Amino acid sequence: MNTPTIHPVVLCGGSGTRLWPLSRKAFPKQFAPLVGNKSLLHLTLERLATLNRTITCVASEEHRFLVREAIENAQTQGRQILEPVPRNTAAAMAAAALLADPDDLLLFAPADHHIPDVALFAATMRSGVEAALAGKIVTFGVAPSFPSTAYGYIEAAEATGHGASRAVARFVEKPTAAVAETLILQGNYCWNAGIFLVQARTLVAALRTHAPDILATCERATAAVSVDGSFVRLDCEIFEGCRSESIDYAVLEKHADVAVVRFEGAWSDVGSWNAVARLHPADEADNRVSGMGSVLNSRNTFVHAPHRPVVALGTEDLIIVDTPDAVLVAGADCAEQVAEVVRMLAREGTVEATEHRRVVRPWGAYDSIDTGERFQVKHLTVKPGGKLSLQMHHHRAEHWIVVKGTAKATRGGEVLLVRENESIYLPSGTIHRLENPGKTMLEVIEVQTGSYLGEDDIVRFDDTYGRCPAAERRDALAMPSAMQPAVERSVDAPA
Amino acid sequence: MNTPTIHPVVLCGGSGTRLWPLSRKAFPKQFAPLVGNKSLLHLTLERLATLNRTITCVASEEHRFLVREAIENAQTQGRQILEPVPRNTAAAMAAAALLADPDDLLLFAPADHHIPDVALFAATMRSGVEAALAGKIVTFGVAPSFPSTAYGYIEAAEATGHGASRAVARFVEKPTAAVAETLILQGNYCWNAGIFLVQARTLVAALRTHAPDILATCERATAAVSVDGSFVRLDCEIFEGCRSESIDYAVLEKHADVAVVRFEGAWSDVGSWNAVARLHPADEADNRVSGMGSVLNSRNTFVHAPHRPVVALGTEDLIIVDTPDAVLVAGADCAEQVAEVVRMLAREGTVEATEHRRVVRPWGAYDSIDTGERFQVKHLTVKPGGKLSLQMHHHRAEHWIVVKGTAKATRGGEVLLVRENESIYLPSGTIHRLENPGKTMLEVIEVQTGSYLGEDDIVRFDDTYGRCPAAERRDALAMPSAMQPAVERSVDAPA
Repeated sequence: MNTPTIHPVVLCGGSGTRLWPLSRKAFPKQFAPLVGNKSLLHLTLERLATLNRTITCVASEEHRFLVREAIENAQTQGRQILEPVPRNTAAAMAAAALLADPDDLLLFAPADHHIPDVALFAATMRSGVEAALAGKIVTFGVAPSFPSTAYGYIEAAEATGHGASRAVARFVEKPTAAVAETLILQGNYCWNAGIFLVQARTLVAALRTHAPDILATCERATAAVSVDGSFVRLDCEIFEGCRSESIDYAVLEKHADVAVVRFEGAWSDVGSWNAVARLHPADEADNRVSGMGSVLNSRNTFVHAPHRPVVALGTEDLIIVDTPDAVLVAGADCAEQVAEVVRMLAREGTVEATEHRRVVRPWGAYDSIDTGERFQVKHLTVKPGGKLSLQMHHHRAEHWIVVKGTAKATRGGEVLLVRENESIYLPSGTIHRLENPGKTMLEVIEVQTGSYLGEDDIVRFDDTYGRCPAAERRDALAMPSAMQPAVERSVDAPA
Repeated sequence: MNTPTIHPVVLCGGSGTRLWPLSRKAFPKQFAPLVGNKSLLHLTLERLATLNRTITCVASEEHRFLVREAIENAQTQGRQILEPVPRNTAAAMAAAALLADPDDLLLFAPADHHIPDVALFAATMRSGVEAALAGKIVTFGVAPSFPSTAYGYIEAAEATGHGASRAVARFVEKPTAAVAETLILQGNYCWNAGIFLVQARTLVAALRTHAPDILATCERATAAVSVDGSFVRLDCEIFEGCRSESIDYAVLEKHADVAVVRFEGAWSDVGSWNAVARLHPADEADNRVSGMGSVLNSRNTFVHAPHRPVVALGTEDLIIVDTPDAVLVAGADCAEQVAEVVRMLAREGTVEATEHRRVVRPWGAYDSIDTGERFQVKHLTVKPGGKLSLQMHHHRAEHWIVVKGTAKATRGGEVLLVRENESIYLPSGTIHRLENPGKTMLEVIEVQTGSYLGEDDIVRFDDTYGRCPAAERRDALAMPSAMQPAVERSVDAPA
């Protein structure tokens, strides 16, 4: 028998706020560079690529460009199934199974776990193939290293006769500390890692038995997908009506034929700042420091400081997280309350509760580096081949200064090349576009001036990334004067 | 008898690092906005202005523009005696006394104390006049509110017969906690606030008796002053040779005729972050928060957050200080070790140990808002009438975008007005100058590009603020081509 092909499916839908201020609604933890400048999604893709370089991602519409960036960085390929709204793992896995060939062997893996031993991971996954091909849903259980109360447990029963897999006796929800101690002493319990190997047809059949409503909704949503390059969009209205349930509750805890394969390597769900801290080596006083952090007379203090000097002096049992636009200082035993902080800030209308200063776009990213009354300064980074939409602003003019690379600028009827150390002026009302025609990153300082500088003062006429509603295009046609060369307001002539 | 004129002298030489990262060598604590957006120097000048609006400041050459800014903001007037190097209070007071009329009644006050009751302060100072005119050195002692171990104490003896003043029995250095408790129970001890009222002739005579070397050096340094507007510069070489000693050690502890007047109001030397915290109101859990700080389930936590959201979660007895380019998190009982942090960072070569991102200049200020390979972005704020030097850079070109106000720009042989939303390009090698000819603040975004962007790539040809060495002017004359209109490298023509 040839080794059958494993088709990895990464579940990217997590939107936890437990790692605020690093992770936020618009930028969940799986996208944040947490381990040696790589994101957990990047590492997950690299890990799965040792099994198969073509990987399906199930992700939120909102995060598609972040996922694409990770796919590119990890040098993998594959499509993204885009969820218009989050509906938990049962629906995400149902959609992926329905869009696969029924014979496909699917390996579902969360995007936001850390598993450093890639070779052991791949070997363990392969050791579940035989049971999966025999019609079982194969889960992977992590050999517990301490009596965690933050994870669910799986009790293994007798061997199935298929490789290393054993039957699942039962699933145990997050236990109390006392119960957790008992469980790990028994030797046949392991942590539920949320990783599953299953044939598409097996999962669909199990859903039909245990969660027929979820399956039916997903059948209709996948029948009505729209395909846009590597993006596969589920029908919005139908999918919105789907019940939101985890695969554990919806199927696994009710299904008879579930097997478990034990994974003996290190694993973390990176579910709190304490877990992030543990990814870093400790000094002799148990301090863990990253980036520009430093400690003096401190104990058990974690400092996350990628951007500027952050000093902990005489602190104990503390977590310090610095980002360009928000800082968190938390007692180590309060790491689980970070979500409460986010709710508090959101209630107060603090934008940093959910959004970052640096925003990723399909063409690259922008970082708001300065802002004042009637002006705003952004640092734009445009990827090779990246193309901002053809657009116009009613209320703001823009100056672009190219500080790295070469820009192709459309301004009214002109198309100009703007080189390093050159600038160009775009009066308000002028249709314009910025592109990177080169092979290296383009970096531009954009100075906006005007009475209103909101992101929503934008009329898009054309967009490479499908962000241009038809209504706006119609508006554009009704406004031919906007295409006329701009009246220039600079000193000589604007550059 | 007419009420004699009091001549306030503010001692601005303090360069403490105990409030890092807010105060740094280039920006000591007396200049930082700590109380309702006013600096301690600003408040000190306002307080003294109730006695006399003409105030002498003794300050470091390095800080003269910071002092001038505070003088303007506090709407006071007067000269600055500039010390080329710091030589402690005995020398600073000697210089001020020697540069005053011998009959002048001088009120010496540190720049960095907080005394909220201005009327009581003024009345208390006036109550010392009679004793000072009788030839005494009058010190002011603060009625102690707790047994502090951070302050020196003054023991008062019998009344002098001159107003409320009493003879000083002795000075006590910072005591142990046990001794401090005994002292404040006795009722005749008060804190030494470092404020002195004395006739110039009295102080000079006392110096002649107890510290003749300091007096002699200061006599020579003041004989050789150079006057430049309101700046009075002590002779650098002579003053450098002066012994560095506090007035307490050099004179007061040895002098027979010292009186003390008790001040019954609130007073703080703002000598640590704990003292800064106490300037803010506490919530019911003893948290004190300023700016965009917030706390959740915290106790006795101080958050200084003028720029971005800073959240303390479940913290206790903690100090959190955020600045644009460095963060300090310290245990409340470690506030006295902040200077150690600064030494550690300086050893590691961290520039933020001593310098700020925002740098004050005589014409206004600049803030480095972004930096990258071969480019740098600064936000310049130019005061009305402010004028940067006529200058040239060998290695960098500059783009200026005016985002507020109107700029007068000299570029080679041209002089141009650049209005809001306009820009101008300055190729490297072009002599240029930026001025604010208007009545409101001018704000400019400056984008620098080039292979070397250090502050020292500047050739100054003319400077309103005396920052232009003759050697550079000679260089300029030898380089007439630099005055030729620049070759322009922008797209149309650079704006």
